[in-house]
Amino acid sequence: MKINYKLKDIFYGGDYNPEQWDEEVWEEDIRMMRLYKVNAVTLSVFSWAKLQLDENTYDFVWLDKIINKLWENKIYVILATPTAAQPAWMSKKYSSILPVNVEGHKMKHGRRSNFCPNSSVYKGFASKIAEKLAERYKDNEAIILWHVSNEYGTYCYCENCAKEFRIWLKKKYKTIENLNEKWYAHFWGHTFYDFDEIEPPSNLSEILPGALGDRDGTCFQAMAIDYNRFMSDSILSCYDNEAKVLKRITPNIPITTNLMAAFKPLDYFKWAQHMDVVSWDSYPANSDSTSNRAFSHDLMRGVKGQEPFLLMEQTPNQTNWQQFNALKRPGVMRLWSYQAMAHGADSIMFFQWRQSRGACEKYHGGLVPHAGHENTRIGRELKVLGEELHNFGHNIQDSKIDSKVAIMFDWSNWWAVEFSSGPSIALNYVEQIQKYYKAFHDMNISVDIIKPTDDLSKYKIVVAPVLYMVNDEAVKSIEYFTSEGGTFITTFLSGMVDESDLVILGGYPGAFKKLLGIWVEEIDSLYPGVKNEIIKTEDSFIDKDKYECELICDVVNAQGAKVLATFGKEFYAGSPAITENIFGNGKAVYIASSPQQDFIKMLTNHYCETCGITSIIKPQIGVEVSQRKKEEDTFTFVLNHNEDEVRIKISNPENYVDLLGNITVGYEYILEPKGVLILKSK
Amino acid sequence: MKINYKLKDIFYGGDYNPEQWDEEVWEEDIRMMRLYKVNAVTLSVFSWAKLQLDENTYDFVWLDKIINKLWENKIYVILATPTAAQPAWMSKKYSSILPVNVEGHKMKHGRRSNFCPNSSVYKGFASKIAEKLAERYKDNEAIILWHVSNEYGTYCYCENCAKEFRIWLKKKYKTIENLNEKWYAHFWGHTFYDFDEIEPPSNLSEILPGALGDRDGTCFQAMAIDYNRFMSDSILSCYDNEAKVLKRITPNIPITTNLMAAFKPLDYFKWAQHMDVVSWDSYPANSDSTSNRAFSHDLMRGVKGQEPFLLMEQTPNQTNWQQFNALKRPGVMRLWSYQAMAHGADSIMFFQWRQSRGACEKYHGGLVPHAGHENTRIGRELKVLGEELHNFGHNIQDSKIDSKVAIMFDWSNWWAVEFSSGPSIALNYVEQIQKYYKAFHDMNISVDIIKPTDDLSKYKIVVAPVLYMVNDEAVKSIEYFTSEGGTFITTFLSGMVDESDLVILGGYPGAFKKLLGIWVEEIDSLYPGVKNEIIKTEDSFIDKDKYECELICDVVNAQGAKVLATFGKEFYAGSPAITENIFGNGKAVYIASSPQQDFIKMLTNHYCETCGITSIIKPQIGVEVSQRKKEEDTFTFVLNHNEDEVRIKISNPENYVDLLGNITVGYEYILEPKGVLILKSK
Amino acid sequence: MKINYKLKDIFYGGDYNPEQWDEEVWEEDIRMMRLYKVNAVTLSVFSWAKLQLDENTYDFVWLDKIINKLWENKIYVILATPTAAQPAWMSKKYSSILPVNVEGHKMKHGRRSNFCPNSSVYKGFASKIAEKLAERYKDNEAIILWHVSNEYGTYCYCENCAKEFRIWLKKKYKTIENLNEKWYAHFWGHTFYDFDEIEPPSNLSEILPGALGDRDGTCFQAMAIDYNRFMSDSILSCYDNEAKVLKRITPNIPITTNLMAAFKPLDYFKWAQHMDVVSWDSYPANSDSTSNRAFSHDLMRGVKGQEPFLLMEQTPNQTNWQQFNALKRPGVMRLWSYQAMAHGADSIMFFQWRQSRGACEKYHGGLVPHAGHENTRIGRELKVLGEELHNFGHNIQDSKIDSKVAIMFDWSNWWAVEFSSGPSIALNYVEQIQKYYKAFHDMNISVDIIKPTDDLSKYKIVVAPVLYMVNDEAVKSIEYFTSEGGTFITTFLSGMVDESDLVILGGYPGAFKKLLGIWVEEIDSLYPGVKNEIIKTEDSFIDKDKYECELICDVVNAQGAKVLATFGKEFYAGSPAITENIFGNGKAVYIASSPQQDFIKMLTNHYCETCGITSIIKPQIGVEVSQRKKEEDTFTFVLNHNEDEVRIKISNPENYVDLLGNITVGYEYILEPKGVLILKSK
Repeated sequence: MKINYKLKDIFYGGDYNPEQWDEEVWEEDIRMMRLYKVNAVTLSVFSWAKLQLDENTYDFVWLDKIINKLWENKIYVILATPTAAQPAWMSKKYSSILPVNVEGHKMKHGRRSNFCPNSSVYKGFASKIAEKLAERYKDNEAIILWHVSNEYGTYCYCENCAKEFRIWLKKKYKTIENLNEKWYAHFWGHTFYDFDEIEPPSNLSEILPGALGDRDGTCFQAMAIDYNRFMSDSILSCYDNEAKVLKRITPNIPITTNLMAAFKPLDYFKWAQHMDVVSWDSYPANSDSTSNRAFSHDLMRGVKGQEPFLLMEQTPNQTNWQQFNALKRPGVMRLWSYQAMAHGADSIMFFQWRQSRGACEKYHGGLVPHAGHENTRIGRELKVLGEELHNFGHNIQDSKIDSKVAIMFDWSNWWAVEFSSGPSIALNYVEQIQKYYKAFHDMNISVDIIKPTDDLSKYKIVVAPVLYMVNDEAVKSIEYFTSEGGTFITTFLSGMVDESDLVILGGYPGAFKKLLGIWVEEIDSLYPGVKNEIIKTEDSFIDKDKYECELICDVVNAQGAKVLATFGKEFYAGSPAITENIFGNGKAVYIASSPQQDFIKMLTNHYCETCGITSIIKPQIGVEVSQRKKEEDTFTFVLNHNEDEVRIKISNPENYVDLLGNITVGYEYILEPKGVLILKSK
Repeated sequence: MKINYKLKDIFYGGDYNPEQWDEEVWEEDIRMMRLYKVNAVTLSVFSWAKLQLDENTYDFVWLDKIINKLWENKIYVILATPTAAQPAWMSKKYSSILPVNVEGHKMKHGRRSNFCPNSSVYKGFASKIAEKLAERYKDNEAIILWHVSNEYGTYCYCENCAKEFRIWLKKKYKTIENLNEKWYAHFWGHTFYDFDEIEPPSNLSEILPGALGDRDGTCFQAMAIDYNRFMSDSILSCYDNEAKVLKRITPNIPITTNLMAAFKPLDYFKWAQHMDVVSWDSYPANSDSTSNRAFSHDLMRGVKGQEPFLLMEQTPNQTNWQQFNALKRPGVMRLWSYQAMAHGADSIMFFQWRQSRGACEKYHGGLVPHAGHENTRIGRELKVLGEELHNFGHNIQDSKIDSKVAIMFDWSNWWAVEFSSGPSIALNYVEQIQKYYKAFHDMNISVDIIKPTDDLSKYKIVVAPVLYMVNDEAVKSIEYFTSEGGTFITTFLSGMVDESDLVILGGYPGAFKKLLGIWVEEIDSLYPGVKNEIIKTEDSFIDKDKYECELICDVVNAQGAKVLATFGKEFYAGSPAITENIFGNGKAVYIASSPQQDFIKMLTNHYCETCGITSIIKPQIGVEVSQRKKEEDTFTFVLNHNEDEVRIKISNPENYVDLLGNITVGYEYILEPKGVLILKSK
Repeated sequence: MKINYKLKDIFYGGDYNPEQWDEEVWEEDIRMMRLYKVNAVTLSVFSWAKLQLDENTYDFVWLDKIINKLWENKIYVILATPTAAQPAWMSKKYSSILPVNVEGHKMKHGRRSNFCPNSSVYKGFASKIAEKLAERYKDNEAIILWHVSNEYGTYCYCENCAKEFRIWLKKKYKTIENLNEKWYAHFWGHTFYDFDEIEPPSNLSEILPGALGDRDGTCFQAMAIDYNRFMSDSILSCYDNEAKVLKRITPNIPITTNLMAAFKPLDYFKWAQHMDVVSWDSYPANSDSTSNRAFSHDLMRGVKGQEPFLLMEQTPNQTNWQQFNALKRPGVMRLWSYQAMAHGADSIMFFQWRQSRGACEKYHGGLVPHAGHENTRIGRELKVLGEELHNFGHNIQDSKIDSKVAIMFDWSNWWAVEFSSGPSIALNYVEQIQKYYKAFHDMNISVDIIKPTDDLSKYKIVVAPVLYMVNDEAVKSIEYFTSEGGTFITTFLSGMVDESDLVILGGYPGAFKKLLGIWVEEIDSLYPGVKNEIIKTEDSFIDKDKYECELICDVVNAQGAKVLATFGKEFYAGSPAITENIFGNGKAVYIASSPQQDFIKMLTNHYCETCGITSIIKPQIGVEVSQRKKEEDTFTFVLNHNEDEVRIKISNPENYVDLLGNITVGYEYILEPKGVLILKSK
């Protein structure tokens, strides 16, 4: 289901909370929206208490009024179900709605996302308000999208969740014997005789707060991983609970909820299957890297099979909840907006339209700041961006990205790696993914983020950093991909366990032993600051004698694989550090440690070359290049993230039109600091 | 009500806990008190369990005995109500006394200050024991002061406090609609329909532990600030509950409780209005600065309208509860005692007389250490100090301090600034106050710490660092002060919100926009370690081309104000950093960042000069000079905090008498390391 | 009761968990055990749920089968009672078994050691399963040892423990008046009138989490120390509860439980009196020092009066629960095994036989790794070690260690020192002990770790670092030891309090004032990074003019003692830092600070020389030398912990046989890196 059935343009606008303001302010809002060329706003995200006064009384008058006013001005409405924060009267009357946290405390009313996802009372009220909204606005032309609730993600550990967990387990494992086996429950006498004996893993049972440095440990990995799966499913059922109603009443209006990229509690690959379109909230710090921001966008494109997504929230200039809320520098809001678009966004939306007078986000920037007018730096920037999008956005909408490289990402694997006790608390799954992502990104090579069981046929290179947990389907798919000529690159700890976190016996890397042609005998963990060396072998393509690596070093025995590099230090000096195995028509590469970034860059560059994958425009430091395609058209985004201007060389200028500047494209282009160039193929 | 109606001298003594010792030790105590020239001790601070054996049985015999013994030796008694620690039998029988902490846990008996301030049972017992004491000792000549309870400050979150909070809110806001508006409750769907829906903000509802670095965050600032106000009031009602009884029975005995300077939980400006005299407990670390110690004294003088206060507790040599309990070096106990006096103290009291044999303060120094005799370093120092005070203390008692400079301090503002989410967790209100205080202190210029609504007519300079929260009364008073010729200095974030933490719209600094002649467009937060520069403009009085600043930088537009300096870096380089606005006959100065100390010193020095405020004695590093005045007499305290001797130049020696040394005052005076000179005007 | 009544050899094997594996794997286990020359394994440590299916159903069939299979292959069995982890059905049915943690939370089923030690239900079930096992296997030849439960140590704070605590207190103190006096309860109004008023010290009452840096503080030291004593006793009663049954049914099978060296919650000196043999689990990090590892072994020998102990668990190559689980380097497993033996171990056992497929210790190394075969680095090392032990182990078994130096260690003292508020949170009791231990260890001088009341007659030097808490018996014993010619060395804070944490009045070091001939007037605490100096006096044996010291500096007055060194800085510069007092025929030495390691080495070296205590073999860095003796035989262990080979000089080679190499012993021996030499006297 496409989002462009009505508004055939890049959505430009943001969360709009008129209920925080007197009606006289609304007129001014409309004036400024028109000035900025806003074409869509999100309404009623946190309006439950304003829409439902008590169990039986609803008030939609104010919402009618503002929707009409917007629509009179040709501004579309993304209508939110307001279920992220139930009214106080509801929490008071039905305390079963309130969740129990991981410490075992029953919460009181307050915050937001403060409900038990398995509360039937909550769900009853939520589907009711969704129904009321859908019935009321089903024929309203202004509505283009449903925005279900907001930033889902609160886990619960109440008795009711315990009951539902047992049902979920029974459905999954059928018998308690099977559960015992899959959970390896005979360890530490954890054998169960009845599903009813199972308690959710909390700080009062199996969870060990802070046991893994910044992370909580657990005495019972398999249970903890299953609880995350169960909770992700439970919270998804809250989404489904409302989406089902909306779909029934308004089958033609697409539905989304706003995600948060690499957000650990929820398996977004599973979630995206339930959503018509992915939308997400992007709040990088100024100190975040360009490639990490790009990764987040690509992940959000990836969870829904590389479909375009919506940038649902970003800030015009400043967040309030970071430790140090530095301002976005001039040009950065525009630059990052285009970066989102370059990676697949079909909207540029903000939180929030008018900066709040009070409460906890009063310091969060708004499109209308506390000053109340447009004569501000951000006002000027927003106006320019709105005009640009208005002029050419329709070209871009619904265009796709065509990647030859994929990186595998998996939530269950993330949970499994980071719940494991050992080998190192310094192991961070997302960081490992981001290291490999960065290598391609820095070469201007587009990457799809995929799940392990996704179709691999369109890719030439597939990278699976720390793919510790695997299933047969993924392993077979990877083997097939490789045997058919693909290049598969993986790292230490991969292939070790099945979906129950049970080690695949017979030597590491378990599932990938044959594919990789190696046997990993032992896994060494390096103390912080300690490095080992990667020493090239004689006939290896590696370009330097020595690179550094850290974190983990596998003690590898080559069993058929070619050794491209060995370790330089420790008792396993001389044993393989990097191997390449010919597997059918393809190659399977193993990286037995966490190398320095330069090494990964060199290695991925080599395999890109051998696979014939090239950058569109020659890479320059800080200049990001990305392409979207739509039918015959190609849109090449050139983004200068540097503080200085750069000289862009274009080999075939005659093929391009400059979409933003509408100037003639030449062989060289001076791109200003934070500047953006969008070349449309002629 | 003055404290000098009986004992017309500096009080010298300390907390005395005879109940911890056999009676035979009491004789030795008296001998040593006389040796040290002790004239007052505080009795029965934690003696509730010893005074009240069960619900109906009291035992005052031991207290009679020791009071009589003291009085026979002309030692006055500050009599404490022992209500800081209820007896175990009471907690056991009446569990409603025990508080619920912010984590939602019902406390068990133990610690101290471990009661719910809204417990009617606690209050009933507390007023009863106060009444018993007052009735028994109302005619006892020895009693000079009531010391109600001890170091109040424990917040509670129980159901009873919740109920009282709702009553407090109803009284303040009248209607729930008004509360919703003032609390900005429509944000995040926090709208209430009934006061009964409101829960105290705890870790189980709106408080987010550790969300702001070292500090707890909140999802609901206005509620959190009000809960602090309510708790400060609730705890004050415990004081009032006892004070009322004491006042009724002994109308002529003044009443105090021991405060703790910049103690965040309690609004001491409000408290001091209920107290006859302020007293406080001073426990600086050796690593604390001289000016921060001085600030604490001045704050304690300030909360009670610049009246003299009592130094109720300090340690002769060592605390036990600091992380590293370094000894006070020789001379330091005397030096810091005179520092307290120089800033307004009319007593030098200690915790405690005889060092405890056991329990948690056994390592806390006492006037009688574990060795049990006076032949110790501290014994010798105490004896000297006692003799000095005995000789001249009566001169000083009840003398005042006359300041031309005031710094505004406000508890609600403190809570509001530090509950806010953004712009920087590194922002510490008290540190900002102390930076400005230090600038004057280092110049030997006396400062009054005042609240924003205090009368400003006697001041020439008023400084209000980070005065973020303001009310109309304060704004009008400041405007009037300035228009009448005063110099008002304020900083970033000032004037932003009203008393409900609602932003004053139309551009920052809100309430001070007109006064300051500027508009602050954006507020940048600097990462730790990052600096910006303050660059002087051409016709500015600033003495150096460049100073450094950090933490926050405002993006300022001058709207009438003169720009004294601009920022040197970032996209707002060249925009105003320091401005001065002529307002009526005065000047309003804005400092848009947190400058290095040298800059503040230079700036305050400039305005002191222009206002004709000068140091009595030329400032020297580490030499503190302060004056007290009484009728015709002026007492100038010169305190050498250095490790080395200093040469003090006295321009008009003929006008002074040396109060301590009784030597002739010359043009030059060699003051030994840690030495003290007190010059009395002839 | 000796362990060598059946298996007259060093025990070699490990925890064996066949219940985690299919029976077909068992055959392979046996084959590999025989290959490695395993002679003993520990069974059923966590098998309660597998052995007891419900309240009345037991299943011992699988256990019979594996015991028989082992015994057919001459492998002995250490049989564990499985009571460290009760079955889930038991927790579910009898929630009184589950403990309440220090935060006041009732635990749910999970983890291990998750039971209330005063639960009569738990104890009933535990003695029942112990009885069942004992009855079933009492005549089984394979059983050589009972292993009661596992790694005891969980404190509980439930209502039932509160009741038992009151009974324990009544028994100890008889009257509440006596308790008040001993606890110094009149401080902070803590006076009790009835034992029923006393609550266990938890985070909800007297415990202050994190108040002492890394440690929890308390408002009530005496109670907190008593609660630790009570909990250590309570948990010991769980051990006794089972041991009593086992002893009744199998009076000839010795009993142990696995301890954990310097494990703070349990007073192992007391525990060891209840055990037939001490066993313990040794899991040093690679970064731990050789001397700290040695100290742990010596402590475990010491708690049971210097009897040989069992090394019950270690890892072949890797733990999983450390932050960074580095591999043991080649040779290290063997080296550390011999180190254990050199210090008194009569077994080399591992956790666990076969590495787990799942659950929280899947990354913990096993004798059979996930690869499943012996053709691994660790397989080869284990085979070599097994053969060596098989060849000569019987020689060593039951040999003793003869030390002339003892270091006092005491759990109550540990608790008292570290619960105290002040003088410094940086004071770590075990670190202080280890500093002095290291000095002797580095000289190859054997040290016994003893408790303060142990017999001192065999020692020439007794060291008591930070022996803060003392009783009369210990003081008299130390005085007698010294007067008879012994050398007693102690440090700052020693002799200060009695067993109730009551300061011994009249000046520090209280109980040792006479013995040491000094009076400590004050105790200074140094900030981190701050040093003072130890300056030698003129006729002192100290070899250098100046050493550094830190942490604490006492202000000492010599009262008869000779001053060996004075402090170099601060106001107490020139006052005594090191003193020596002639006491009868002996010497009592006081060290008034925490000196750098070199100083302690120099000082202990001096007293060893004056006492005629010499190293067997001249000390070399990283070469540990230790001796065991048995009847006429002496076994000298020479262990090279270095990364390089060392040259060992043997002055009288003709007296020795090389037990491992069976080569002729010469005057010089090249010991390879991580190499081991065991010389048997001819």
